[in-house]
Amino acid sequence: MPIVDIHTHVYPPSYVERMCLPFLLQSRVLIENPVVLKSRSTVPYVRSIPPTNSPRLFVLPSEDPPSTMSTGRPIGPEYYDIAQKIAFMDIHNIDISVISLANPWLDFLPSSSAAAAAEALNSDLNTICDKFPGRLFAFGAIPVSASVEEIVSEIKRLSGMKYMRGVVMGTSGLGKGLDDERLNGVWAALEEAGQTVFLHPHYGLPKEVYGPTGGEEYGFVLPLALGFPLETTIAVSRMLLSGVWDRFQGLNVLLAHSGGTLPFLAGRLESCIAHDGKLLREGKIANRRTVWDILQKNIFLDAVVYSEVGLKAAVDVAGADRVFFGTDHPFFPPLEKNGKEEEWLSVTTNYKAIKDAFGPGEMEKVEGVLGGNAVRLLRLEV
Amino acid sequence: MPIVDIHTHVYPPSYVERMCLPFLLQSRVLIENPVVLKSRSTVPYVRSIPPTNSPRLFVLPSEDPPSTMSTGRPIGPEYYDIAQKIAFMDIHNIDISVISLANPWLDFLPSSSAAAAAEALNSDLNTICDKFPGRLFAFGAIPVSASVEEIVSEIKRLSGMKYMRGVVMGTSGLGKGLDDERLNGVWAALEEAGQTVFLHPHYGLPKEVYGPTGGEEYGFVLPLALGFPLETTIAVSRMLLSGVWDRFQGLNVLLAHSGGTLPFLAGRLESCIAHDGKLLREGKIANRRTVWDILQKNIFLDAVVYSEVGLKAAVDVAGADRVFFGTDHPFFPPLEKNGKEEEWLSVTTNYKAIKDAFGPGEMEKVEGVLGGNAVRLLRLEV
Repeated sequence: MPIVDIHTHVYPPSYVERMCLPFLLQSRVLIENPVVLKSRSTVPYVRSIPPTNSPRLFVLPSEDPPSTMSTGRPIGPEYYDIAQKIAFMDIHNIDISVISLANPWLDFLPSSSAAAAAEALNSDLNTICDKFPGRLFAFGAIPVSASVEEIVSEIKRLSGMKYMRGVVMGTSGLGKGLDDERLNGVWAALEEAGQTVFLHPHYGLPKEVYGPTGGEEYGFVLPLALGFPLETTIAVSRMLLSGVWDRFQGLNVLLAHSGGTLPFLAGRLESCIAHDGKLLREGKIANRRTVWDILQKNIFLDAVVYSEVGLKAAVDVAGADRVFFGTDHPFFPPLEKNGKEEEWLSVTTNYKAIKDAFGPGEMEKVEGVLGGNAVRLLRLEV
Repeated sequence: MPIVDIHTHVYPPSYVERMCLPFLLQSRVLIENPVVLKSRSTVPYVRSIPPTNSPRLFVLPSEDPPSTMSTGRPIGPEYYDIAQKIAFMDIHNIDISVISLANPWLDFLPSSSAAAAAEALNSDLNTICDKFPGRLFAFGAIPVSASVEEIVSEIKRLSGMKYMRGVVMGTSGLGKGLDDERLNGVWAALEEAGQTVFLHPHYGLPKEVYGPTGGEEYGFVLPLALGFPLETTIAVSRMLLSGVWDRFQGLNVLLAHSGGTLPFLAGRLESCIAHDGKLLREGKIANRRTVWDILQKNIFLDAVVYSEVGLKAAVDVAGADRVFFGTDHPFFPPLEKNGKEEEWLSVTTNYKAIKDAFGPGEMEKVEGVLGGNAVRLLRLEV
């Protein structure tokens, strides 16, 4: 049974060139696109930070303004060089990766250029996959600032592309969250095309959430460890509460980081719904699908949760046949590299969690989470 | 084996009179204390909302300004009448309750009057317990706006009171979070006195977190179901990251709502710490106690998580001998009452989760969570 990584990001060269790092790859700058991340004044943007002056990508509000080398992410070839992705896969015995663009995706583009950018980017992703047949598939990006018609058109185009298996989407959807009525056309198109939405956190939470200092004294820990998962949980809860899955009962959503905190908070969420006076008065308590039902029919979870406890909870709510191995590559590399071929702690932690979460007689479930589920549910012909 | 409820709130009459509702109990207003919740202009405050004009308590930023009957909490005798608490206990077969003041506690008092208010309130709580010997114990309140000396003095006084078993504390501590260095003297006093801190969320999260509308269209669901648990998780993570438990290895903290989201996110938290460049450069990764160690030695969890999945995760991280049944009474009452003696869904959901989380041969663990653990660890002589 193959091992499949369904949570693994790439910033394709075309993205880096056109939108991200024209000053890094100056020979290939496409000057017709002035919307580059380094020229933006609010996150997301790219800045060069002393003392190394190497370019760093800033996507979180809690990193703004950029102050030190402790903020932002250094942008290196592991972001865009697909050969490094393949090498990473080989080191970790990963047979297939379903790659996706990472945040900030195309979300910051003006509506006039978004559709063309999405088309170029997705074609590029498909071409990258084609260079490593059987080893790479992809979730496409959608032009969220474009019109719904343009988004739907791109979704239909993706369905005809050999390696595309869905779309990656941030928690803000078209800018107003995933309960936005404008998304109805998008959900309908995705449902009809049988494409999975890979729902991923985007900007974290406002930094006031982390306390008076914004949590900066603890590096990235609070926004990444806690903010990202809650962002996902809020977004999917708003989908649930607004009845998206009552209207689109065949819509499949893969939640990053094992659902953020949804498996653990599902019970509290149901209880709070059942005890809410406003929802009762509006007749919204009785006639709805519960979170438990949706978790078992419409939601898939990745296994990027870094603990046996978390993985067991994910499996308990979604079923062992609906949880998928992932790495979050190229993020969370080893802090101190001893050699180029070294396994990553962030990956081995998740491998160990999967193996520990099941008993000795449950090898079939382990294999399912490691790859079989993804092959079956995302139709990854090997 | 008795059933013990360790998460159950009361606003004693003295609190209601002096700080909360002088207009409700006008005959007994203590006019020397002008700091009443109804006179405040920012949350927490009390307002009377049409059409009923009954008083409602507002503690969450997401409820400000108060607009409709959908915001705030109606204040009725279940808030302050201890006979209703005892009746609730009897209906649900609860033998012992460890009562605590609910938010906003004494946090909003000016420093000049906080110590005296805490003394009066805690004496009052002890007297209430004494009226129902063997059935009531309490977590005291601390005057967080007073000097550290006054707080420590009140903690020492609590140790001599017959029914006091610890203190309830909000996530903001003395106003700046639980990693505030000023708290060192407080932690030392609590550790020395062997008193447990019941850590409880307070204000939720800023409402921007919930999206463009602040989530109001879904009543209280988002702030209560998601905001409260994350608030607790952030607060306890800041304690952990600032090394509170490295300095005070005997400090015991009981986390409300099964730790917020800590059991599920503990792995991600450890992974983010292990991969944080800033913490590495500061030498803070290697020489520290891990969250797993602290979860098994210093942290207790209540069982107020409303699902078998959540309860299993709580038990997995803390141990079946360190999880305690609770109800969150008087909150989450049945929305539609059919009769006075009815069991509450919010309580039966948690009873069911406890029973379902253990196998048929684990009755001892069920009894431990239902009461035995609390009797042993909080020294509740029956």
